[in-house]
Amino acid sequence: MRNHLKVNLRERSYPIFIGGGLLKEAGSLLRRVSKAPKVCIVTNAAVNRLYGGALSASLKRGGFGVVTTLLGDGERFKNLKNVEKIYAALYRAGFDRSDAVLALGGGVVGDMAGFAAATYMRGVDLIQFPTTLLAQVDSSVGGKTGVDFLKGKNMVGAFYQPKLVVCDPDVLKTLPRREYLCGLAEVVKYGAIKNERFFSWLEKSADSMLDGDEGALGKAVLESCRVKAGVVERDEKESGERAILNFGHTFGHGLETALNFRRLKHGEAVAVGMAMAARLSRILGLLDANSEKRVENLLSRLGLPVSPPAGVSAAEVLRGMEHDKKILSGRLRFVVIDKIGRAFVREGVSKEMVLSACGG
Amino acid sequence: MRNHLKVNLRERSYPIFIGGGLLKEAGSLLRRVSKAPKVCIVTNAAVNRLYGGALSASLKRGGFGVVTTLLGDGERFKNLKNVEKIYAALYRAGFDRSDAVLALGGGVVGDMAGFAAATYMRGVDLIQFPTTLLAQVDSSVGGKTGVDFLKGKNMVGAFYQPKLVVCDPDVLKTLPRREYLCGLAEVVKYGAIKNERFFSWLEKSADSMLDGDEGALGKAVLESCRVKAGVVERDEKESGERAILNFGHTFGHGLETALNFRRLKHGEAVAVGMAMAARLSRILGLLDANSEKRVENLLSRLGLPVSPPAGVSAAEVLRGMEHDKKILSGRLRFVVIDKIGRAFVREGVSKEMVLSACGG
Repeated sequence: MRNHLKVNLRERSYPIFIGGGLLKEAGSLLRRVSKAPKVCIVTNAAVNRLYGGALSASLKRGGFGVVTTLLGDGERFKNLKNVEKIYAALYRAGFDRSDAVLALGGGVVGDMAGFAAATYMRGVDLIQFPTTLLAQVDSSVGGKTGVDFLKGKNMVGAFYQPKLVVCDPDVLKTLPRREYLCGLAEVVKYGAIKNERFFSWLEKSADSMLDGDEGALGKAVLESCRVKAGVVERDEKESGERAILNFGHTFGHGLETALNFRRLKHGEAVAVGMAMAARLSRILGLLDANSEKRVENLLSRLGLPVSPPAGVSAAEVLRGMEHDKKILSGRLRFVVIDKIGRAFVREGVSKEMVLSACGG
Repeated sequence: MRNHLKVNLRERSYPIFIGGGLLKEAGSLLRRVSKAPKVCIVTNAAVNRLYGGALSASLKRGGFGVVTTLLGDGERFKNLKNVEKIYAALYRAGFDRSDAVLALGGGVVGDMAGFAAATYMRGVDLIQFPTTLLAQVDSSVGGKTGVDFLKGKNMVGAFYQPKLVVCDPDVLKTLPRREYLCGLAEVVKYGAIKNERFFSWLEKSADSMLDGDEGALGKAVLESCRVKAGVVERDEKESGERAILNFGHTFGHGLETALNFRRLKHGEAVAVGMAMAARLSRILGLLDANSEKRVENLLSRLGLPVSPPAGVSAAEVLRGMEHDKKILSGRLRFVVIDKIGRAFVREGVSKEMVLSACGG
């Protein structure tokens, strides 16, 4: 199955190609949208071993000069020091404004390479080639780039749209199981906030998704990117609607903070957060109990947690949320749903209700 | 005299206010365009001593919370380490996406504060309050921000438009004479590349400009900003016409490199560069000898150099240019004029002609 979508943002519009085997066609896809003489592949050692060779060969067939820069693997490398390493690699390879940067990897690689591309010589072409399910359905689309700074996640960054996104579900076969499931959490999110029909399809297709069935996976990536692209088109810089993409994330981030970013992966924390956000929606009288259960059940069937690990209290999760940048001016502000497929922001939620949603 | 212009860039449009005494009105001008609760003034110690108090008081009268961050004074501080200091100050003062950054100073302060504003939390409101003539007519308008990296000038940066520019010619009274003359070089540039009538007016008004006459200065800033705004409106990201703003800069930068960035100030090197660019235009058969002379004479009358310091050869200037990022793909590319007030880019200029224009 081959598909493509377009993200419509006037002069910043770009295509997303989705299909098995596209790794080998990256060079010709890129040639359609970029005249860059040279491309710098930014990746990490593990991903480079698996896919760097095939990608590089494909780019060379497309007539691109290719250099590769390796970053450390993990969120702890997502800082300005490592962005400077990318700048230095570009500088030493003689890259100028006409050249391009390609992110081959998960969210960390995409965010860092994206920020480097946004700021090297005030911006060079960026290509996203995401190799995790989470990055394919989330971080590679929409133009958020950035790094952590001091204690702030994504405290420094830029909105910078890629010129091209290529999602090859075949590369997900080498993804560790837990990483794969984390990606499914975001897939569920798109159904829950924007597409009831897709959510129902996910309920029916949960087993195929768990099996990594190619057809099911291709459809899940396509529909997820479609939802994300639509939201980004209507609110590129997150001044309104785009906030709904944070469904489950405020709770999830509070939980991650309470756990000091250990034990749970980001996608797992978001899964717990979505169950909490659905519960909050019900507590606020917005969502019926059956729909709340559907969210929780689908996440559970997909092997994702829906409550905090033992020993974490609701009060700790709440405290973890209070430094979240998404809570504006001290008011508690949450993305809620009033039915499967319809999300919005609710302000001024009481702490008692939040505690109750956290299971307190 | 009070004037204002608008830079028309759709949702990124912004006003430029020009007038004596506007320092004390900055708070009310800003309140018209920004809801920011807090403003961080980025400046250096010398400028802060002169104008920090009055600006801060004005912002407070406008209802803004104010914090101030000081940078070192000079191009050698224009690096990522000092941008991180701005991020840290913003972070510690609890700044979020709704707050704002104000650059109070010359080009270095404006470029660094601008880049910090472009990238802190993926972008906060930026206000430019330039305190040098060069910054008032050039760097504060048009959205180029950035810092030096390794040996590359402005190697890392972003196109990021301010929300407001306030030019108060009164603050130029404390500017060292040499800095003031450097600003005049850029003023001459706008006449030379885009406005013959303004150029003629400058020829008539050279003495008033040298005296710092308020009316003349106000008009010079206004007309310069008008030319710059028009060029930026038509080519925000420098994919075409905006390159003409580099008139004299390729030669000037070559000269600066040859001098290891000593002896001449940037504006002085640009003045020499413009005389060379006019000569190149004549050598290429584009410009008549009389117009070439007019460029050289006006610069001279304004106390600016029009030839390299003794001991610098034409060959050294050429070598200095060859690493300039404005020379694309090894081809020699220059901004030339075919009459006073009309500039364009000429590619494929021979080294012999360039040497000859450098006085070789």
